[in-house]
Amino acid sequence: MLKGRHLIEPADLTVQEIDEICSLAEQIIVDPSAFTDVCRGKILAALFFEPSTRTRLSFEAAMLRLGGSTLGFADAASTSSTKGETLADTIRVVSSYADVIAMRNPKEGSALVASQYSAVPVINAGDGGHHHPTQTLTDLLTIRSLKGDLDGHTIGFCGDLRFGRTVHSLAKAMSRYKNNTFVLISPPELTIPEYIVSQVIKPSGIAYSESLRLEDVIGDLDILYMTRVQAERFFNEQDYIRLKDSYILNREKMKLAKDSMIVLHPLPRVNEISPEVDADPRAAYFKQVKYGMFARMALIAKLTGAL
Amino acid sequence: MLKGRHLIEPADLTVQEIDEICSLAEQIIVDPSAFTDVCRGKILAALFFEPSTRTRLSFEAAMLRLGGSTLGFADAASTSSTKGETLADTIRVVSSYADVIAMRNPKEGSALVASQYSAVPVINAGDGGHHHPTQTLTDLLTIRSLKGDLDGHTIGFCGDLRFGRTVHSLAKAMSRYKNNTFVLISPPELTIPEYIVSQVIKPSGIAYSESLRLEDVIGDLDILYMTRVQAERFFNEQDYIRLKDSYILNREKMKLAKDSMIVLHPLPRVNEISPEVDADPRAAYFKQVKYGMFARMALIAKLTGAL
Amino acid sequence: MLKGRHLIEPADLTVQEIDEICSLAEQIIVDPSAFTDVCRGKILAALFFEPSTRTRLSFEAAMLRLGGSTLGFADAASTSSTKGETLADTIRVVSSYADVIAMRNPKEGSALVASQYSAVPVINAGDGGHHHPTQTLTDLLTIRSLKGDLDGHTIGFCGDLRFGRTVHSLAKAMSRYKNNTFVLISPPELTIPEYIVSQVIKPSGIAYSESLRLEDVIGDLDILYMTRVQAERFFNEQDYIRLKDSYILNREKMKLAKDSMIVLHPLPRVNEISPEVDADPRAAYFKQVKYGMFARMALIAKLTGAL
Repeated sequence: MLKGRHLIEPADLTVQEIDEICSLAEQIIVDPSAFTDVCRGKILAALFFEPSTRTRLSFEAAMLRLGGSTLGFADAASTSSTKGETLADTIRVVSSYADVIAMRNPKEGSALVASQYSAVPVINAGDGGHHHPTQTLTDLLTIRSLKGDLDGHTIGFCGDLRFGRTVHSLAKAMSRYKNNTFVLISPPELTIPEYIVSQVIKPSGIAYSESLRLEDVIGDLDILYMTRVQAERFFNEQDYIRLKDSYILNREKMKLAKDSMIVLHPLPRVNEISPEVDADPRAAYFKQVKYGMFARMALIAKLTGAL
Repeated sequence: MLKGRHLIEPADLTVQEIDEICSLAEQIIVDPSAFTDVCRGKILAALFFEPSTRTRLSFEAAMLRLGGSTLGFADAASTSSTKGETLADTIRVVSSYADVIAMRNPKEGSALVASQYSAVPVINAGDGGHHHPTQTLTDLLTIRSLKGDLDGHTIGFCGDLRFGRTVHSLAKAMSRYKNNTFVLISPPELTIPEYIVSQVIKPSGIAYSESLRLEDVIGDLDILYMTRVQAERFFNEQDYIRLKDSYILNREKMKLAKDSMIVLHPLPRVNEISPEVDADPRAAYFKQVKYGMFARMALIAKLTGAL
Repeated sequence: MLKGRHLIEPADLTVQEIDEICSLAEQIIVDPSAFTDVCRGKILAALFFEPSTRTRLSFEAAMLRLGGSTLGFADAASTSSTKGETLADTIRVVSSYADVIAMRNPKEGSALVASQYSAVPVINAGDGGHHHPTQTLTDLLTIRSLKGDLDGHTIGFCGDLRFGRTVHSLAKAMSRYKNNTFVLISPPELTIPEYIVSQVIKPSGIAYSESLRLEDVIGDLDILYMTRVQAERFFNEQDYIRLKDSYILNREKMKLAKDSMIVLHPLPRVNEISPEVDADPRAAYFKQVKYGMFARMALIAKLTGAL
């Protein structure tokens, strides 16, 4: 039963609930016109205490495409929190106006606090380096829709695996499904945190390997999940110059990949995927944007009890 | 007849008109689903020349819950007034697009000016230290709904009674009803302006008393209207330290109050009401937020002629 | 066939297509209630990389009055472009959410770039000094509605004819109709660019004359299109002092004009039209604002294929 629930982190959802949301999203994709009045009369409050245009617009489009409406703010500059109001009070006020809240806030843990004071479901739209569960739902729906299911895939995570919140969340999520294999591709400074290996990957029996260079392993992958590598994260400049091209996906590297591989990226991308890859049918990162909207539609419909 | 009218200050409304708006609001509260299409096709322009998230979202939620839609801006940074356009021209332009305007502007008197150039009803959503009539409507609807009527109550106004715009407006409004008694609780520096005593309270025959300390009088009150006392408003620091606790409502003081007393606050609160009071059934300041939305729904429906 | 098309500059539309849009706009003006559900379920993305409140609100009101909804941003501060995302990627993302995009961007040529990456129609809402085609549509619809047609008029363009983008566009547009005469009224420093005379006006056989002073020619005009003259655009201060009053429209000059003349202005005006002219029935610049909304309604309905 998802009605009335909050979504603070991906683990708030059971595998069955994720399936339920993905199934609804897939029904929406097949016949969106059947869902255009599902949230008629309902209001989404988009409370973005820091800007994130893509995420905000995705939530708003999702609610509008269900026939609902939206209100909120795009950054903290114009909120009462500048008058010293606590987050608890802001949430109590806004939950008097809205039927569901999507909140982005730079403070880790703020979404959990918000949920404790809200009279309506709170969806965490990113709380600092912590969680961004609808990004994970987006990734899962994209994989399920394009690959048929969430089991038995070889998934390469490439780039900054240390600080990349989306990578951690997706790795945890995919560890809950069967027979997946992980290939962790990063410079030594940016390997995945040890606790994810010892407490997530190993206990779930996931096979995994590590690689310094994308070109060495891309041929094995069913799914390539790209993230950005920022120069300032390297310990020294020589390493950066020597390694950086290994984390840039281009046409050359795509030649080494399977025909059935798909490339995902949480966006925004800067230069870690060359624009020459965009036209490749395996580039799925813009389709992923659309899946993100459908995932949020399904989630909003479920949490508000509309469906 | 409220259709087509502006609302610049609370005194623009007769007691009968306030009753009419409150009665409609109470009908909406009883059965909101009967009002979800009342403003279908109508547009509210929310023109906030200074930020006030709570008020803006309350107006927007009100219009959306009537089936209408909204447009506007949340602060002046992105308006044509930065190109030297007059308020008169901005209002003429926006009133070409919208069916009703809610305007917040730091300049006193700006709402009156706006109304003179608008082709559609203008609702003053705060013009500097002047007026904020929908806050007063909110306060009146809250009292009427929770106490049954607007007559015969002992109302304590506590905190900064000198500069608190909402206190002045509510005192004036309650002076128009019968058999109310005021208890004015403030430090000497922040007593209510003399003109309100001599021109409003005394002429209307309202009984009133003054007190330095909330704890001395809280037991007499049916309604306690709290406002903030800012440290910088005190003449000297010793006074502030000696007196400030008298204007902070906590569980201790609530023990001295009647079981039937209700606590109101225009929000945002900072520390003048301790969070330990929030769970007390007499704490009505978050209910008040919801009444604010319903009051604005009724007002918008009336001014636009939808009902 | 306008469905699915972009509108980057006025010349993208044939004279027949402009007629088609104006005809639809005039039908909407006659019976707006027949069009309130035409875009139900459709979303307009208003992407304003620089503020332009009037234009943004006009687009949003247009979509809302067609029953659609809106999302977007009012300035670039809160967009992903601050994270280094390209315009191409931003547009690909947003065109996944919306059915039509109205974009304002200070970079000339940006609207054309956007259209190359968008899955949905892009309407240029101003790209630097380049184009602003819906302003031109607004001007044409206003003239057609108030004067009956777009042929056979004597049109005075007054003020800064050198840098005034709207003047160039309207001159080009009116050159496509029959038997119009242009009167170009400007200080010597701000005459219309030579290429517009040699490549637009002369080839189309338009009769034209030039004048230094509005008062000398206003009596000949059917339409007066006013624009602002900024002091800093004059070469020397004496010229400015000597000439500036010639470009300010006041009641005195209006006495010299025909009873049937109409005054247009793209707004915002600062002091180039004295407020004393506003009440003159020939002052059409606020009506023009409303025609702007209707022109955009017709355009949006056509490009989205709703009508």
